[in-house]
Amino acid sequence: MALPARRLPSATLRLAGKSWIRPCTLRRIASIGERSFSASSRWQLHTKELTEELLGSLKVNQSRLMEDIHHTCQWGTGLRWGSARTETGMSRLSLTDADKQAREWFIGTTQALGCKTTIDSMGNIFAVRPGIRNDKPPTFVGSHLDTQPSGGRYDGILGVTAGVEMLKVLADNWVETEYPVGVVNWTNEEGARFPISMVSSGVWSGSIPEETAHNLREVHPGNATMASELSRIGYLGQTPCSYESFPMAAHFELHIEQGPLLEMSNKKIGIVTGVQVYRWFTIKVIGRDTHTGTTDLKSRADALLTASKLVLHSHRLATANSALASTGILTLKPGSPNTVPGEVTFSLDIRAPTDSTVETMTQLIESDFPKIAAGENVLGSNENCTSGLPCDITITLDSDSPATTFHPDCISAVTRSAQSALGEDAKALTMEMTSGAGHDSVYTSKRCPTSMIFVPCREGVSHNPAEFCKEEDCALGAQVLLQSLLRFDRIRDERRVTWKQEPYIL
Amino acid sequence: MALPARRLPSATLRLAGKSWIRPCTLRRIASIGERSFSASSRWQLHTKELTEELLGSLKVNQSRLMEDIHHTCQWGTGLRWGSARTETGMSRLSLTDADKQAREWFIGTTQALGCKTTIDSMGNIFAVRPGIRNDKPPTFVGSHLDTQPSGGRYDGILGVTAGVEMLKVLADNWVETEYPVGVVNWTNEEGARFPISMVSSGVWSGSIPEETAHNLREVHPGNATMASELSRIGYLGQTPCSYESFPMAAHFELHIEQGPLLEMSNKKIGIVTGVQVYRWFTIKVIGRDTHTGTTDLKSRADALLTASKLVLHSHRLATANSALASTGILTLKPGSPNTVPGEVTFSLDIRAPTDSTVETMTQLIESDFPKIAAGENVLGSNENCTSGLPCDITITLDSDSPATTFHPDCISAVTRSAQSALGEDAKALTMEMTSGAGHDSVYTSKRCPTSMIFVPCREGVSHNPAEFCKEEDCALGAQVLLQSLLRFDRIRDERRVTWKQEPYIL
Repeated sequence: MALPARRLPSATLRLAGKSWIRPCTLRRIASIGERSFSASSRWQLHTKELTEELLGSLKVNQSRLMEDIHHTCQWGTGLRWGSARTETGMSRLSLTDADKQAREWFIGTTQALGCKTTIDSMGNIFAVRPGIRNDKPPTFVGSHLDTQPSGGRYDGILGVTAGVEMLKVLADNWVETEYPVGVVNWTNEEGARFPISMVSSGVWSGSIPEETAHNLREVHPGNATMASELSRIGYLGQTPCSYESFPMAAHFELHIEQGPLLEMSNKKIGIVTGVQVYRWFTIKVIGRDTHTGTTDLKSRADALLTASKLVLHSHRLATANSALASTGILTLKPGSPNTVPGEVTFSLDIRAPTDSTVETMTQLIESDFPKIAAGENVLGSNENCTSGLPCDITITLDSDSPATTFHPDCISAVTRSAQSALGEDAKALTMEMTSGAGHDSVYTSKRCPTSMIFVPCREGVSHNPAEFCKEEDCALGAQVLLQSLLRFDRIRDERRVTWKQEPYIL
Repeated sequence: MALPARRLPSATLRLAGKSWIRPCTLRRIASIGERSFSASSRWQLHTKELTEELLGSLKVNQSRLMEDIHHTCQWGTGLRWGSARTETGMSRLSLTDADKQAREWFIGTTQALGCKTTIDSMGNIFAVRPGIRNDKPPTFVGSHLDTQPSGGRYDGILGVTAGVEMLKVLADNWVETEYPVGVVNWTNEEGARFPISMVSSGVWSGSIPEETAHNLREVHPGNATMASELSRIGYLGQTPCSYESFPMAAHFELHIEQGPLLEMSNKKIGIVTGVQVYRWFTIKVIGRDTHTGTTDLKSRADALLTASKLVLHSHRLATANSALASTGILTLKPGSPNTVPGEVTFSLDIRAPTDSTVETMTQLIESDFPKIAAGENVLGSNENCTSGLPCDITITLDSDSPATTFHPDCISAVTRSAQSALGEDAKALTMEMTSGAGHDSVYTSKRCPTSMIFVPCREGVSHNPAEFCKEEDCALGAQVLLQSLLRFDRIRDERRVTWKQEPYIL
């Protein structure tokens, strides 16, 4: 019988090493020489001593996990899509008051489970549970608690709450890991409020200068910066945001797939081997404000008409190159029904499985966009149009995330954990896949072994209030996450000598 | 020598009829039997007694007019385009604090010139200078003091300040008109803040229900209504906004052309014979929010891609039908760089010289837009595109302004005034034309004889901070406006018997 986490005195749990004492209220079954989690001959179980069977018997608590997910969704509740209590989306933009409340829950809960929490200068929160060798970096699971403005309850939130559930299972079962383990909540993963996604893991990995991140201005209404909001909500931590100041041994991330492939092929677990390439651009089109009634089509430099041609052209290029092209933000000036817009700014998100395809797309955009804005008929863009005055185009590259390949040892830990969790059906119910979306794991993978676990979401819908993942799929993913972390902890111990080249492992 | 208006005691001027007394400080030249405006054998001149020569010698004061224009531009000053003091645009949205200040200037100035001011329930301000027959409706000149968010110093403002200058010239020269004359400032002509243009002359003419106008919600940020803002700035007048409560005998409007035709053909005065047709639509495209990285092109219902196709298609239809199609506002949801927008709303402004062309455009839009949103390849819209999920389209007609033909007597008054002002060059320097833009004169023409006077603006640029009209062109336009009003006053008197069918003339 597992002891509910809340009954464990956290002061005791905070002590590292073997000195923990199991409260005597626990039932003890004398089965000397054979260990289980309801009955043990010792007060403490070490991961390196776990058999496959014992590992498999460590179970996440599905209803407790779901309670945590929905409990945290009281902060920043979004649009309703169904009639049940939990059938709403989420709107918890990073560093808002709602995000602060979710962060406080995370810190309070992980501290009560015996973790030490550290906040770095990007507001990333690292909750670390001590192991035996606490002079070494922790093995982490993690994701993010911020959401899109009209997002759902699973993207990011599942990964963090599954990490909390992992801590609860370890506490319930008195498991002591060889190395410290932890859960990380990354700041502004979505890039929805401050427009660089995964910006804080990007700073941690040294890929994005902290100054750039701190100076990022919110999309709406545009007055606050990341630094000002971190400071306002009290999450501008003292620890420098850096893999050097706060190293990780590994990073595992559980996430909904956000696409339709697992569901369409009736799979339960996606073993994520890497992440597709993406580049984010900002395109600015400068024309001239003129009156809609008095300016003939020839005398116009219509920035919105030009932007429309460019959005359509980006889609045609994506179609021709088996890539993705998407515009999620478009703003125009001055914004009056009888004024031809003189200025349009829009985002352009280009993705493909390979670096070379994204590079080809980039080159085509850079060569075609100015031609189209000048009135040239590229791929039919200006077919049957009136030739007006040219518009000026500027193309700015905001983010560049090359193809990411995850670490074979992490992938292997996930594969073996999925096999353990699914048993005989493992082969039929798992598939290796590439992530279409960027995740904080892209940046962690630059500095430590990393991989991800995907679970199916209904109709592949994500970044939408109706985003949904079945309870049993959430729990199955959390189960694989838990085992993956424990397997990696064992691998670290087994390879103490041979992995000397991995600075954060030993 | 003309007496500066400010030296006239306004209490005296407010008295109607022949009892006004010219201050004895004025120099009197005894030239009995011959009248002029620097020397007169009588203290009072009546318009019906003016010879062509005397009419022509009534001159507007160019520098005083320009001072008034730029003085009023201190309220709501916009973007700078040049280095001189007056080289900025305007941003004076209707019923803002800046608009209130401009209104207060208008009321103070016209009252000081002997006018009685009336504010109606749409905040329209009518400043009326008494004539001899004050039991009849006044002849008006007018326009509007509100501007586009990034508008210029001439659109609307020229028409109102030229009206004020007209009052000053009449006062300076002790002209007494047969009928009362006035200047009107119409509310929210631009439709930039509350999205129906010419809404308040529309209510006055009985074309737009007052309730609709009062409930109009501002475009940004969307909390205030016209009624709440009228009330807030103290311009919700007691007089019902209606041609029945406040009739006009005629309406003359001086305006910059806002297009390039006068400048391109080296003309100085446009004699406006009518206004082209326009219709305003709101188009709503409903797709589905999805993640940009994980949703393949086939699985998307991309509302912005669809909207881009529709904007481009409207331009192609306009090209094919010799019409105009313009989108000045486009908003999308949810607005995040890595979320495919699930909802886009945009404005569509269709114009053409004839009702039948606009009707054809309407029918094409109504039939083609849903097809394009469903993936059909209309005029190449979906050529080389990936066939995704369909989007839903709703098309709402917001405004419908049929072709307007101005009144022949007003057009004739303008033509003769232009001939008088331009002398021998009149034929070379004037042209009859149709207005591309809507103006309050469209609505007044439904209820009283109306016409307009256009002056050239640089490169046809309008609704832009750099909108510019030469000082001599402003003054020439004001000169033609002044004369047109006086000529119409004389016509009213001459036709007292024969015009019995014109209810507001006699």
